[in-house]
Amino acid sequence: MIYFEDLEVGKQTVFGHYAVTRQEVIEFATKYDPQPFHLSDEAAAKTHFGRIAASGWHTAAMTMAVIARAVVAEEQAGLGSPGIDELRWLKPVYPGDRITVSGTIIEKTPSRSKPDIGSFRTQTVVSNQDGVEVMRFTSIVLMRRRPG
Amino acid sequence: MIYFEDLEVGKQTVFGHYAVTRQEVIEFATKYDPQPFHLSDEAAAKTHFGRIAASGWHTAAMTMAVIARAVVAEEQAGLGSPGIDELRWLKPVYPGDRITVSGTIIEKTPSRSKPDIGSFRTQTVVSNQDGVEVMRFTSIVLMRRRPG
Repeated sequence: MIYFEDLEVGKQTVFGHYAVTRQEVIEFATKYDPQPFHLSDEAAAKTHFGRIAASGWHTAAMTMAVIARAVVAEEQAGLGSPGIDELRWLKPVYPGDRITVSGTIIEKTPSRSKPDIGSFRTQTVVSNQDGVEVMRFTSIVLMRRRPG
Repeated sequence: MIYFEDLEVGKQTVFGHYAVTRQEVIEFATKYDPQPFHLSDEAAAKTHFGRIAASGWHTAAMTMAVIARAVVAEEQAGLGSPGIDELRWLKPVYPGDRITVSGTIIEKTPSRSKPDIGSFRTQTVVSNQDGVEVMRFTSIVLMRRRPG
């Protein structure tokens, strides 16, 4: 189990990759973000997207998928997140793209009111197969401290 | 069609509601956020969640679903969003909850480089059936200006 004490400020982790498929882009958008440029190449061609592009919330979800799989695999004692700052969708994410998710721990702070938990801030960066940054955000994450 | 010129700073809009189901919470978490407290009541009982709670990214996606349906229905000339600031997951969202999404336009700014678009900032607030705020964020949205 990885606890708050095991986190290293400044350490960068490459969490992994996610292959973006046309079917999933359309499924997600149909359910959660049915704006025309997420559903149809014709509609997207009339915008700066040019062709069908993933919903930004879908990119965030795919990013979380990559992080969560890594976190669950190494049994991090995470307790969820109170929030996200400065999320930026920098470039469109297209079907056929393969995104890479990496994160750097910026700071960690033991809770003053709850001695068994701490919080840390990470900078998450998502790039596509051409090395172009497509999304970034800062997140706050709660984590258990090592017992005893 | 609703254009940038039609937006009114300070105006609050109630976009609608979303019923949170256990099946959808588990489906989303399985795919995008498989942390134990989003998948199992037993695991969630060992955390401050108490019982199975929606992924925060799922709450964001459900929120977008409510906004997008309203925006598409009234044919807003939106062009996507460059980003989100100060997203806060204030309280857990549970299966059986019914969330209400409302938004207030904080400011609008015509683009200096692109005469056919403008951007606006909105404060989005999500509450549950008890009137408790569960999430809030500020978003930046691009929109077409009225032609001609």
